[in-house]
Amino acid sequence: MSELIIWTYDWVPEGPRGFVRDLRLRWACEEADLAYEIRMVPFDGRQTNHLERQPFGQVPFLNDGELEIFESGAGLLHLARKSDRLMPPDPVGEAETLQWTIAALNSIEMVTVPWWFLKISGDTDNGLTGWLGQRLDHLERVLSEREWLAADRFTIADLLMADVLRVPEVRAFGARPASEAYVARMTDRPAFKKAQGDQIDFFEAADLKRPG
Amino acid sequence: MSELIIWTYDWVPEGPRGFVRDLRLRWACEEADLAYEIRMVPFDGRQTNHLERQPFGQVPFLNDGELEIFESGAGLLHLARKSDRLMPPDPVGEAETLQWTIAALNSIEMVTVPWWFLKISGDTDNGLTGWLGQRLDHLERVLSEREWLAADRFTIADLLMADVLRVPEVRAFGARPASEAYVARMTDRPAFKKAQGDQIDFFEAADLKRPG
Repeated sequence: MSELIIWTYDWVPEGPRGFVRDLRLRWACEEADLAYEIRMVPFDGRQTNHLERQPFGQVPFLNDGELEIFESGAGLLHLARKSDRLMPPDPVGEAETLQWTIAALNSIEMVTVPWWFLKISGDTDNGLTGWLGQRLDHLERVLSEREWLAADRFTIADLLMADVLRVPEVRAFGARPASEAYVARMTDRPAFKKAQGDQIDFFEAADLKRPG
Repeated sequence: MSELIIWTYDWVPEGPRGFVRDLRLRWACEEADLAYEIRMVPFDGRQTNHLERQPFGQVPFLNDGELEIFESGAGLLHLARKSDRLMPPDPVGEAETLQWTIAALNSIEMVTVPWWFLKISGDTDNGLTGWLGQRLDHLERVLSEREWLAADRFTIADLLMADVLRVPEVRAFGARPASEAYVARMTDRPAFKKAQGDQIDFFEAADLKRPG
């Protein structure tokens, strides 16, 4: 029996399928050949029904034996210590992976997600647009000079950054060929395709069980 | 000679003094009694003058011997492995610290900073206001039930969350007594006061050297 358990919702609407963040942990496990199970908390009532395990009512969270870890970024950093395929074990490689993982969460996603949120709320040309452009331009410069963010090889930093950048509205925001090629390369990886396909299948199967 | 070097700007305007993020690393070093030096990159031209060391033109970044690490969150996680005073060494305590550190960066600061940015740009009642209220309410519930975020003791998760929450506009956003008491407790720590005082002194001294 697997010790790794990835928790997600028992159902989500069609829109977010393929983008729910359990995909980040599935993808990491697929890259590293780590066995895992998927378990569910109810989507209905998610604001309050699992706060003792995820204090913001979100998914995913991860079990690893006695450990329980919420926040997809924390789950990735935890999984990365279990397999060299996700992060090199030497101090320099580890530091590079760590800094680019945090950059994805706190320098890029801190702008992309609120910008996206305002945009889909109808505020297309919102006050975060200029800031988003600056951050993506900085990243474009980096990605035009290298294949991987950290340590000259695939790491969880690439997994996370690609997952942040592949959101369709972000991907369509201005022409940034190096970033686009990077997203295409990362999402062409078999482990990504397996994780995404499995997530979509999982939520499609859940349609059949859902009342109404 | 110290191996830890914290890099910041050589000057900032009065507004951000006491809030520039080198304070996070100073604070951690003070808590853990780790020796460090402060070094500077020019504030003028910061958008492009140190991109090879911090790809978004920001500060801080950290040197630890041969390692160079940008992103304050990554610097904190790196420093936390050097001292038990910043993170317990057992797997459960480490996982709790990690998840709450990432929560501060990616669940709370991902909303507070863009909301603050829109607010100081003049968009006071902006489209992130409701989301900010929800996130802070969730956190208030957690902080009303415990003194520390992780492992029943001070960790870098508290340092970071308190630094995120102590921004005056965030602190003034609605009455959340447990969060307010938490920020007051954390910023009353001698290590915080030392770090903040040193940063303010540092930038005040820089005024004297600045042309014009």
